[in-house]
Amino acid sequence: MPTLTFPDGKIKKYAKPVTGTELAKTLKVKDALSVLVNGEIYDLSRPIAKDAKVKVLTFADPQGKHTFWHSAAHVLAHAISRLYPDALNTLGPPDPDGFHYDFDNLQIDEADFLRIEKEMRKIIQENLPFERVEWTLEDVVKHQGKNPYKRELAQDFKKKGWKITAYRDGDFIDLCEGPHVPSTGYIKAPKLLSLTVAYWRGDQKNKQLTRIKGTAFPSEKELRTWLTLQAEAAKRDHHKLGRELDLFMMNELSPGSPFFLPKGTIIINELMLFLRGEYFKRGYEEVNTPQLFNKALWETSGHWDLFEEFMFKLKVGEAEYGLKPMNCPSHLLIYKAKRHSYRELPIRMADFGNLHRNELSGVLTGLKRVVKMSQDDAHIFCKPEDLQSEIAKLLDFVHYVYGNVFKMKYTANLSTKPDKALGDPKLWKQAESALEQALKKAKIKYEVREGEGAFYGPKIDFDVHDAVGREWQCATIQLDFNMPLRFDATYEGEDGKRHNVIMIHRAILGSLERFIGVLIEHYAGKFPLWLSPVQTRVLSFTDEYGKYADTVVSQLREHGIRAEADTRGLTVGKKVREAQQQKIPYILVVGPKEAQKGTVNVRTRDNMLQEKPVDAFTKQMLKEIAERA
Amino acid sequence: MPTLTFPDGKIKKYAKPVTGTELAKTLKVKDALSVLVNGEIYDLSRPIAKDAKVKVLTFADPQGKHTFWHSAAHVLAHAISRLYPDALNTLGPPDPDGFHYDFDNLQIDEADFLRIEKEMRKIIQENLPFERVEWTLEDVVKHQGKNPYKRELAQDFKKKGWKITAYRDGDFIDLCEGPHVPSTGYIKAPKLLSLTVAYWRGDQKNKQLTRIKGTAFPSEKELRTWLTLQAEAAKRDHHKLGRELDLFMMNELSPGSPFFLPKGTIIINELMLFLRGEYFKRGYEEVNTPQLFNKALWETSGHWDLFEEFMFKLKVGEAEYGLKPMNCPSHLLIYKAKRHSYRELPIRMADFGNLHRNELSGVLTGLKRVVKMSQDDAHIFCKPEDLQSEIAKLLDFVHYVYGNVFKMKYTANLSTKPDKALGDPKLWKQAESALEQALKKAKIKYEVREGEGAFYGPKIDFDVHDAVGREWQCATIQLDFNMPLRFDATYEGEDGKRHNVIMIHRAILGSLERFIGVLIEHYAGKFPLWLSPVQTRVLSFTDEYGKYADTVVSQLREHGIRAEADTRGLTVGKKVREAQQQKIPYILVVGPKEAQKGTVNVRTRDNMLQEKPVDAFTKQMLKEIAERA
Repeated sequence: MPTLTFPDGKIKKYAKPVTGTELAKTLKVKDALSVLVNGEIYDLSRPIAKDAKVKVLTFADPQGKHTFWHSAAHVLAHAISRLYPDALNTLGPPDPDGFHYDFDNLQIDEADFLRIEKEMRKIIQENLPFERVEWTLEDVVKHQGKNPYKRELAQDFKKKGWKITAYRDGDFIDLCEGPHVPSTGYIKAPKLLSLTVAYWRGDQKNKQLTRIKGTAFPSEKELRTWLTLQAEAAKRDHHKLGRELDLFMMNELSPGSPFFLPKGTIIINELMLFLRGEYFKRGYEEVNTPQLFNKALWETSGHWDLFEEFMFKLKVGEAEYGLKPMNCPSHLLIYKAKRHSYRELPIRMADFGNLHRNELSGVLTGLKRVVKMSQDDAHIFCKPEDLQSEIAKLLDFVHYVYGNVFKMKYTANLSTKPDKALGDPKLWKQAESALEQALKKAKIKYEVREGEGAFYGPKIDFDVHDAVGREWQCATIQLDFNMPLRFDATYEGEDGKRHNVIMIHRAILGSLERFIGVLIEHYAGKFPLWLSPVQTRVLSFTDEYGKYADTVVSQLREHGIRAEADTRGLTVGKKVREAQQQKIPYILVVGPKEAQKGTVNVRTRDNMLQEKPVDAFTKQMLKEIAERA
Repeated sequence: MPTLTFPDGKIKKYAKPVTGTELAKTLKVKDALSVLVNGEIYDLSRPIAKDAKVKVLTFADPQGKHTFWHSAAHVLAHAISRLYPDALNTLGPPDPDGFHYDFDNLQIDEADFLRIEKEMRKIIQENLPFERVEWTLEDVVKHQGKNPYKRELAQDFKKKGWKITAYRDGDFIDLCEGPHVPSTGYIKAPKLLSLTVAYWRGDQKNKQLTRIKGTAFPSEKELRTWLTLQAEAAKRDHHKLGRELDLFMMNELSPGSPFFLPKGTIIINELMLFLRGEYFKRGYEEVNTPQLFNKALWETSGHWDLFEEFMFKLKVGEAEYGLKPMNCPSHLLIYKAKRHSYRELPIRMADFGNLHRNELSGVLTGLKRVVKMSQDDAHIFCKPEDLQSEIAKLLDFVHYVYGNVFKMKYTANLSTKPDKALGDPKLWKQAESALEQALKKAKIKYEVREGEGAFYGPKIDFDVHDAVGREWQCATIQLDFNMPLRFDATYEGEDGKRHNVIMIHRAILGSLERFIGVLIEHYAGKFPLWLSPVQTRVLSFTDEYGKYADTVVSQLREHGIRAEADTRGLTVGKKVREAQQQKIPYILVVGPKEAQKGTVNVRTRDNMLQEKPVDAFTKQMLKEIAERA
């Protein structure tokens, strides 16, 4: 008699175990792929026998995509088994935007993709049901005995005491934990993307394998849209634009630590200036803290244990030190250096301190995943009564930055108390309700992620949508009931007693490095005026008007406008093209007419042309910069 | 037949060895204390037998002070030997502002200073000549045999193959390398300052000793002036003011790394903003570079060998990394990432990157000597032809910052080619002449320090004089012919060939941490308006006018002025005193009259009072801030 709780909070009792398929029918969810049961993904056909929080998953849900792409990987392996019977399939998990499958003994090139895709479409048309079977080790030998990888995996599962399961579709069966969509027909539009090299269990000492990466969508139309966006994203790739626009460079002598070149440094400095302006308005105080701390601090904060593999550690004489991966412990030292009364709260402490996280063994990708970063980090020390108004202020801050300034859409996820959680359950309720009320009041679209909060407190994460439709998790608001306890950080309440302070970790842009990576791609390098490294370039019609071009540049620069002259003896056409390639917002051409009248001929990035007096144009630019339009 | 070269460049041949005393007489130098012979300090009585560059030293020269205070230390030890015959004297060197002597078996307290000073004055009045004698190890045992420290020192000298010498004045003789002033009568005005604990050879495992610190001057007047300045300096001590004004704090968990509190962070940010404004005007480009570099970089730059003890090193997996102590190698990586033509030079690359230098074992003193620092660092990549104009621009920059903005006096030292030097002697000549010509043109007072340049190039250091007469070495301009060679950093010349670029390392403020330490003391916490963490505080006459005070604050803050309100129900007198203690530049009092008329009552730090309309006062403040007056 399971009692199920649905995402809208409704509760229903069932007389007997019920399947996802039945739930989908009752709830009228078309295109159901799988079902979330207390955080675990079930096949639609698997009976739900226990009380649980449930959610029927479609392709719109990340976990639905997970199921979909996992099944698509099986379809690929199935096709390979038909076309290349000697190939040995190893592992084939879903990826963030598709799936991959690694094969041994498979020699193909990308020209073979067409043939493989054709076979996949055949398997899809056959609409073979996915069937879950439980295996013994003997079954593994019986069905996949020639495949040493599957044998090794099955033995691992056995050792860990896990069930050994396989999924069958037609004549293909594969050792697999599942879950899967009901049948191969769900996949509809598959697409193979790349052929690369991989190693068994990711270890270069092991055998080299052939990795096929692919993706799939529930319709051809969705696949085509995605491919178009991918092509657009490739054009906007921040590595490529970073090089072309001289924004940043990387060097193997400092892996994962970007070198911001002069133009990239302008962007990082403008972002900080913008945030500092907001901090001034919003009652934040900035601090500037050390980077190297004795082990004792990291033991108190818990990082030495919990975050160990990501920390750079060093010995200084006999003592052990760690380079900070986060600012919070330093801010607690500042908070604790004085006694605080409830009257002083909330204290909003911001810090652009450099952080280092040891990801050297992981995948470092330009600005998006780095070792050295600087966050627009702040910690708010407050009392429970402040929570709702502080969260409201933070939502306003997030909306101002993304909605008004960067004009990017965003959605929110509210993650609530997990099973294992620290702190008074009453405080959790109060905090979760404060977060939810604030989201509702601010009319921000959000999803509740039940039980996905950190053990130390609930949180709101924001996914920012860029111009090519990708989502990036940037802003975050995390409540923390634990760290203040570890540091014994308190305030004197109105009752004259000491209470533990609540700490809110929050970032609006997140890591500035990563955010700049996102911005480069979002704007395709065409930054708004206030962020543009070169705001205007003045091109002289011929050498003769070089002096006038220089005068115009001087006048603009006197107002702090980042202007430069191009007075080379090249044709205006060539000079315009170069300036356009550099994505300079305003290109000013000056020749005899302009020099005589004291004007400039303004060409915007949209190729609009207009003659303007220098003074009027200066004023127009200053206004646009000040408004961060 | 020595040939001597004098500081003014004059050369004179002598028929026989000549003493400093004779030189002083010829040169009419009164108050000669010792003589500099090829960089070594000689007693005035010691014959100069070889060809040399010479300079007769007085108390005005650092090396003259060195001689003077060294002799004063002997006078102290002499006095102790008379008053406490059982005390064992160990080492007694000169300090930057006096001298100290460490004794074993001496139990005294500061109350005994009067008695000791009296005995010192007696020895001074006796005007005993200092006499240099050469000793054998047997002589040491004969004269100072009861003193194990002197025996140990003498044995060390012997081992190193040094001469063992002693200096006698009257009945006192002490193992000592010298040099000394001619007689005890030169000392005139001695003063004992403090009694602390020290350890033999600075090692806490060794015997604990009694350290007496003192100073001395050639006249009572100079001593009195110095003592007054010391008292003033103590009042301005940046540790003390840093605490009182909430500017920064230190924590033993990160020794030598200041935590800038919100008010200190405002100062550091304002300084950076100021410098960035100057960079924009002066053609600098700022970059933002990594902190953690593979050993290979530091081997190329030479830091791994030459700077090893100051570097924080760590292992990441199998690889060795170092936290950067300087920015130059990162800038060379950027320079080298592209090919350069002479047309692009000079490139002026600025960086506020965080630097770490391992001084954990040394003496860390608040902001003045730190482990973590950020410099207003820049490197100029140029060709030899650019040198003179670049140096001229740098001198203008230095003068603008110290002369115009901070209104601090400064002097320059030009250090020239040392005996062991790298690079073409012609280039050295050209560079030295460029530096000297630029100094002359800029009419900057400078001294030439012959042979004191680095092996890689000549340099100009600037000593900045603070309000209490102390000198701080802040700005520096160093030419470097070596680093570009190590990195093979070149440019294509007009001749189409590749040439090594010249690198100028330069900083105007030096480390921002240290400079803020200097500024706090220079201004005694009364920062100019643009640097003041709180620029104005509005005090309400009674609670009733709190709302008007808040309105005034809002209006000021809308213009970016750091204004705050004090609307507590305290007397205006008390609120004014608190604001004055916080050294807030403008204290505004508002009551019924002001609220009605829309004015504020302005009180300056000099206690000038004036009633002003809010708008007019806002404008006045904005002008003062913009002008960094």
